[in-house]
Amino acid sequence: MQLVDDLIAGNRRALARAITLIENDGAEVRDALAALYRHTGRAHIVGITGSPGAGKSTLVNALAKAYRQQGYSVGIIAVDPTSPFTGGALLGDRVRMRDLSGDPGVFIRSMATRGSLGGLAQATADVILALDAAGFQRILVETVGVGQAEVDIASTAHSTIVVEAPGMGDEVQAIKAGVLEIADILAVNKADREGADKTVTALHMVLGVSNLSTRQVRHHGQLLDAGLPAPASDAGWTLPIIKTVALREQGVPELLAAIEEHRGYLQTSGELQRREEDRARIALVHILQAAVLRRLQKNVSAQQLQHLVAQVAGREQDPYSAADRLLPAVLTA
Amino acid sequence: MQLVDDLIAGNRRALARAITLIENDGAEVRDALAALYRHTGRAHIVGITGSPGAGKSTLVNALAKAYRQQGYSVGIIAVDPTSPFTGGALLGDRVRMRDLSGDPGVFIRSMATRGSLGGLAQATADVILALDAAGFQRILVETVGVGQAEVDIASTAHSTIVVEAPGMGDEVQAIKAGVLEIADILAVNKADREGADKTVTALHMVLGVSNLSTRQVRHHGQLLDAGLPAPASDAGWTLPIIKTVALREQGVPELLAAIEEHRGYLQTSGELQRREEDRARIALVHILQAAVLRRLQKNVSAQQLQHLVAQVAGREQDPYSAADRLLPAVLTA
Repeated sequence: MQLVDDLIAGNRRALARAITLIENDGAEVRDALAALYRHTGRAHIVGITGSPGAGKSTLVNALAKAYRQQGYSVGIIAVDPTSPFTGGALLGDRVRMRDLSGDPGVFIRSMATRGSLGGLAQATADVILALDAAGFQRILVETVGVGQAEVDIASTAHSTIVVEAPGMGDEVQAIKAGVLEIADILAVNKADREGADKTVTALHMVLGVSNLSTRQVRHHGQLLDAGLPAPASDAGWTLPIIKTVALREQGVPELLAAIEEHRGYLQTSGELQRREEDRARIALVHILQAAVLRRLQKNVSAQQLQHLVAQVAGREQDPYSAADRLLPAVLTA
Repeated sequence: MQLVDDLIAGNRRALARAITLIENDGAEVRDALAALYRHTGRAHIVGITGSPGAGKSTLVNALAKAYRQQGYSVGIIAVDPTSPFTGGALLGDRVRMRDLSGDPGVFIRSMATRGSLGGLAQATADVILALDAAGFQRILVETVGVGQAEVDIASTAHSTIVVEAPGMGDEVQAIKAGVLEIADILAVNKADREGADKTVTALHMVLGVSNLSTRQVRHHGQLLDAGLPAPASDAGWTLPIIKTVALREQGVPELLAAIEEHRGYLQTSGELQRREEDRARIALVHILQAAVLRRLQKNVSAQQLQHLVAQVAGREQDPYSAADRLLPAVLTA
């Protein structure tokens, strides 16, 4: 496939076109991704997540610059799962562009939601594949918030950084938000602000009282999906807490070093293989579920579906019986 | 079905047992939900979402007390999508219990994630059905964060309240978080804090510059899933911004009044019917996707799946071809 050949050869236009295909979710994209796939597996994928206002975009920016200084090529994906139409994602992009645009070793892409039901997580995973195949060595995936989409997207990363900032609310909220459970590295950004040390102390306390290792929890969540037993806990990695001031690039070299150390740990411990298998399992389930939705759209007319929907909404029929009625059409090729 | 009869008669134990069945996702639950369904559609469902630290739990608590004073029975569902094993959801519950426990007109349930891929959104929707059938008149669904799970869960609510608080970060983050797009009512909680008026002004500005109505965006997101055209925008409702101090129950009567006003608007405008149809459509898709996962688990052994997963992880096979190999097993009854 010419597009795939061009992309693998490092052609930026081919990469951009492939990503557009992924976002439009056309029929061609499947074949392209299948062909790309064997050229992937070389990039290190870094997820960056945390509450709004923690300074994630600035930190991603600083991290990308630091990686460039070390000679690594960098792909950046900014995911905004809640903003289907307005300019949230674009806004962050404009800021980024000032520092990084024009550098052929950097590729930046924003992604907003394509509807719910895992569509965005799957599209993000596919764009990661495209950047990986195009030869980008470090891929930074920034997600807003602490919801399920972020957990899904973090699960496609090799190293997940959770960004906190001082004064973002009570410390107990950090536990409640639950993002610590997906973290490989914690960054306390805006560390020049009052309360930074208090935040670091609170995080240490939360980590101290947690009975389950963070990785054990993460694996549980994913493997339950496919009904498989959870693997042994990932006790070999101690979650580092790193203070940063992203705006002034303070702490960024330390953060970069922690990521690279984590990468080394993943490779030598066999954990990398386990995470790659997790990613593969999730990809399989997503692809199968997408196939079901496609069959529904192909085999059931909008009118038929609307009729059934109106009956369910009017309580003339329950949704389980209605789904049973749709199932044969979904199962037909 | 005895369980269903007891539940509809208002038996608390039957309700608790039904919810446990829903959470365990057993085979019986399907039949129970199908039987329950025609007894639903009477409750008004209120979603409460927003950033961690905004004081959602306290606000839900105060709102429940206010509804009780007006004689309404209240069901509360606290959803924590990111915390599969640790005590986030339970923690919020304990606080709540002090004020509301022992009141037979209140039923409180926490739900943590059951794995990703829409499982939690579906379970939450099912628990809402059970509370509705059991006769609870107002159902408050609290979700943490701003991710896709929250958008999904908000889409099952009739009225969605987005809770902000002063000083939670730059105002532009409110746009970026995108939660405004799902709001029917905005609450600025902790309004006795410095910066509350600034937050209200910022929200007014954001709403003012937004070209799309909030509801239009919401409908888009959902209907894209099923490939249906988006309906006309919901221009008849002006998003109210209400200042509250939940801890001291200030502004809570006003918030309650806004919810009831929104309920009246939904009924008279025909928008209620449209939202019920949205919910039905989403339920149908979720049930179909769950059916696919169940078939995968039933028809493919853990060993077979693991073998395929290892091949994909090792780049010996791409996930699309692997999914094609699984599809016949998924499509077989």
